[in-house]
Amino acid sequence: MVSSATDPVCQTSVETPIEPAHPLAGYQDQIDQLRSCGRLFHQRRWSVGTSSNYSVVTQTDPVNLVVTASGKDKGRLTRLDFVHLGPDGNPIKPGQPKSSAETMLHVVLARHRRWNDLSNPDGPKLPSGCILHTHSIWGTLLSDHFFADRGIAFSGYEMLKGLEGITTHLATHWLPIFENTQDIPVLADEVAEVLKNNPEKMTHGFLIRNHGLYTWGRDVFAARRHIEIYEFLFELTWRKLMAQN
Amino acid sequence: MVSSATDPVCQTSVETPIEPAHPLAGYQDQIDQLRSCGRLFHQRRWSVGTSSNYSVVTQTDPVNLVVTASGKDKGRLTRLDFVHLGPDGNPIKPGQPKSSAETMLHVVLARHRRWNDLSNPDGPKLPSGCILHTHSIWGTLLSDHFFADRGIAFSGYEMLKGLEGITTHLATHWLPIFENTQDIPVLADEVAEVLKNNPEKMTHGFLIRNHGLYTWGRDVFAARRHIEIYEFLFELTWRKLMAQN
Amino acid sequence: MVSSATDPVCQTSVETPIEPAHPLAGYQDQIDQLRSCGRLFHQRRWSVGTSSNYSVVTQTDPVNLVVTASGKDKGRLTRLDFVHLGPDGNPIKPGQPKSSAETMLHVVLARHRRWNDLSNPDGPKLPSGCILHTHSIWGTLLSDHFFADRGIAFSGYEMLKGLEGITTHLATHWLPIFENTQDIPVLADEVAEVLKNNPEKMTHGFLIRNHGLYTWGRDVFAARRHIEIYEFLFELTWRKLMAQN
Amino acid sequence: MVSSATDPVCQTSVETPIEPAHPLAGYQDQIDQLRSCGRLFHQRRWSVGTSSNYSVVTQTDPVNLVVTASGKDKGRLTRLDFVHLGPDGNPIKPGQPKSSAETMLHVVLARHRRWNDLSNPDGPKLPSGCILHTHSIWGTLLSDHFFADRGIAFSGYEMLKGLEGITTHLATHWLPIFENTQDIPVLADEVAEVLKNNPEKMTHGFLIRNHGLYTWGRDVFAARRHIEIYEFLFELTWRKLMAQN
Repeated sequence: MVSSATDPVCQTSVETPIEPAHPLAGYQDQIDQLRSCGRLFHQRRWSVGTSSNYSVVTQTDPVNLVVTASGKDKGRLTRLDFVHLGPDGNPIKPGQPKSSAETMLHVVLARHRRWNDLSNPDGPKLPSGCILHTHSIWGTLLSDHFFADRGIAFSGYEMLKGLEGITTHLATHWLPIFENTQDIPVLADEVAEVLKNNPEKMTHGFLIRNHGLYTWGRDVFAARRHIEIYEFLFELTWRKLMAQN
Repeated sequence: MVSSATDPVCQTSVETPIEPAHPLAGYQDQIDQLRSCGRLFHQRRWSVGTSSNYSVVTQTDPVNLVVTASGKDKGRLTRLDFVHLGPDGNPIKPGQPKSSAETMLHVVLARHRRWNDLSNPDGPKLPSGCILHTHSIWGTLLSDHFFADRGIAFSGYEMLKGLEGITTHLATHWLPIFENTQDIPVLADEVAEVLKNNPEKMTHGFLIRNHGLYTWGRDVFAARRHIEIYEFLFELTWRKLMAQN
Repeated sequence: MVSSATDPVCQTSVETPIEPAHPLAGYQDQIDQLRSCGRLFHQRRWSVGTSSNYSVVTQTDPVNLVVTASGKDKGRLTRLDFVHLGPDGNPIKPGQPKSSAETMLHVVLARHRRWNDLSNPDGPKLPSGCILHTHSIWGTLLSDHFFADRGIAFSGYEMLKGLEGITTHLATHWLPIFENTQDIPVLADEVAEVLKNNPEKMTHGFLIRNHGLYTWGRDVFAARRHIEIYEFLFELTWRKLMAQN
Repeated sequence: MVSSATDPVCQTSVETPIEPAHPLAGYQDQIDQLRSCGRLFHQRRWSVGTSSNYSVVTQTDPVNLVVTASGKDKGRLTRLDFVHLGPDGNPIKPGQPKSSAETMLHVVLARHRRWNDLSNPDGPKLPSGCILHTHSIWGTLLSDHFFADRGIAFSGYEMLKGLEGITTHLATHWLPIFENTQDIPVLADEVAEVLKNNPEKMTHGFLIRNHGLYTWGRDVFAARRHIEIYEFLFELTWRKLMAQN
């Protein structure tokens, strides 16, 4: 009964035991929450084909993160498919799998964001957090459609209240869009620049054109909720656009 | 490992034991049925991002309800994620989690509806019932599209017979639409006014514009069936509209 | 805990034991196959809101069927949610649940179809078979769109070969559409008339306008395959129509 | 009991024991990976109605393959639903189930492809690989829409990097489309001709018009990833086309 029980679409969740000496011992609960996100997001088709990467911030001064290793099927992450990184995005201990090429975006977000009240970017900074990056079809469509505006303004929907700190459907929420590039340090600098100088323009996430979504929260629960809210708004917005065609 | 067995998309159903002194002991079966609805509705994407709330009416004179606590992931409700409320929507006993801001809509529905035959709103009132509120993409689209008419008329579909008391596809069924507001008491009054003075105009449910659906039934089984019927009709109606574009 | 293991969307599969004296003892394997269809079709949203009905023909001279009871959630059928019926659609033994109002369509199909080669309606008649009736959004849309033609001609798709006896994508397959009615005996007569006099015009199934699909096969496996093929063709055909809009 | 627990949509995975003398003993791990693909692809509706076929190349000189037997439900493959074939597509040992009519396409691909770097078709040839063939709605729509061009050019999407050897979204990837036919040897010759003379024109897969997709990889993991990437690009491309309508 046991093993297959976790598997909605035939993915065995290998529960590889972690010995005490493993660099990730101590983060099993957060890792298991990220694995749970991976199974959900794969099932939803927001993280297919080994795309996407997820992290938890385990320390902020200096930054430490646990992030998904590169090239793994997000629907079948094992506990060994994660890397523990230090402030420059390098592994804290040797012998770990390779981290994603986009690790520097996670590091920059961990350095500059404010967790406790996402709608108040000047508030204090919490010592932990979670960053989730996904690739959905609706997000890809919108990221190109609204690229000329460099962002999307969402307003009028009750579901906006699922974004932390938003208390009314009358709020207008701005989600910035960046041009895609394979030069991640350049993109990371662009993102850092907004986080430092215009944090109110990037409170909960951003899109990369024809690529995907980054969002975050004070813990895995909050960041996962943001993914669900954004994906709801993405499909809704695209379908409304098609109705106006 | 056991708990993950219930989990189609990585949601652990924590089967927290309830001691006899807990205010909700005695409603475990109904609570488990609501949790089952939550797992289904989350999987269908009708209750994502901690949106939605569900209740069972445990007494009508005066009204008592068991309703979902605020801010919970509906795909992973535990037995502790519910609140027992009295006639004014206040907790019957202290120490319970916070109930949803929309609790007063449940209270008003519990006070005024007639359960035994939803197509005959003047019929007798049963001492129990179930109220389900969900947020779907199709419902959101229609609630705005038909807002000028303040409702949607469904007719001609065999699936209408899934709404209690409707016996032919030739029936015309009216689903009212209210403007959204964060002032729930005002909305509750508007709903109560229709339930008291024009119950035949709101037999099985209503939409809130750009927000979501409320429906009900004599038990969880019936209310869950109504959600499925409405969601079928919503997607169908939107796709027909697109074909006529 | 055990039963929930089978449950992808929170549906508990109650494995109620059947004592030898039960009228359905002896058909447990076929009943379990129909329950499996129900779980699949509910998950696919082809049998939601207690809609749909399924049967196996257990004898043809005279006709005997085991058919789903009325008003059951098809995603959670128990072994007791079936009725054993004789040649006129009446229960063979007392004490069984009520059968679906559409039982007479199953009886008529059991009387008149030829099972062994659906593409050759004049072939011999097998002593068993399976009839599946579902309600999908795509089928509903097409049943109305093509009603003026009283049927749909499918051609050119490799997937047509999933319909028993069709060996090339170049085949043209005709699926008739009947007007919906609540007078099932009248509809059953119309269906019987085609089966007797023009069997080549209704080899694998038919649609009822704004209602649903009937299809059949020599066993549950074949009929279930036909449902999957038709549903594939329905969505494909509707999406092509939208592209030509 | 073990296997049925894996079943999200009611499909029992019969774990039939294989005795040492069985022609497929020795390939159980690869067979189980293909069965896992079948469950995923059936759930995604890329392999419904017994369509599709999958193989692993177990030897290349001469070619040996393990391929799915004909007419099986891909969501419920057992370990016995596979055939071991030699260089001409004939069973290596007697007593095996019938292989798919499209087996010769697998044989031709096993003979001519280069596995180690799919973006470099002149590279060395590995002694193993995996070939997956699926039938999706989006692929069917595109295969007809772009047939006049005899292929589709994908460019600009980050998800292209999920195709082995592609390192930038700026790459342009060409997916050829062949006319459908029931004369598989003729189609196999056409495919072989491109693989031999223009391998750079068919690096990762091809479509057959109104039929389905073939893709491959050095192992089941890589080929499965390619299926997910292509299906993402198919739906995305169709939705963009509809927006430009």
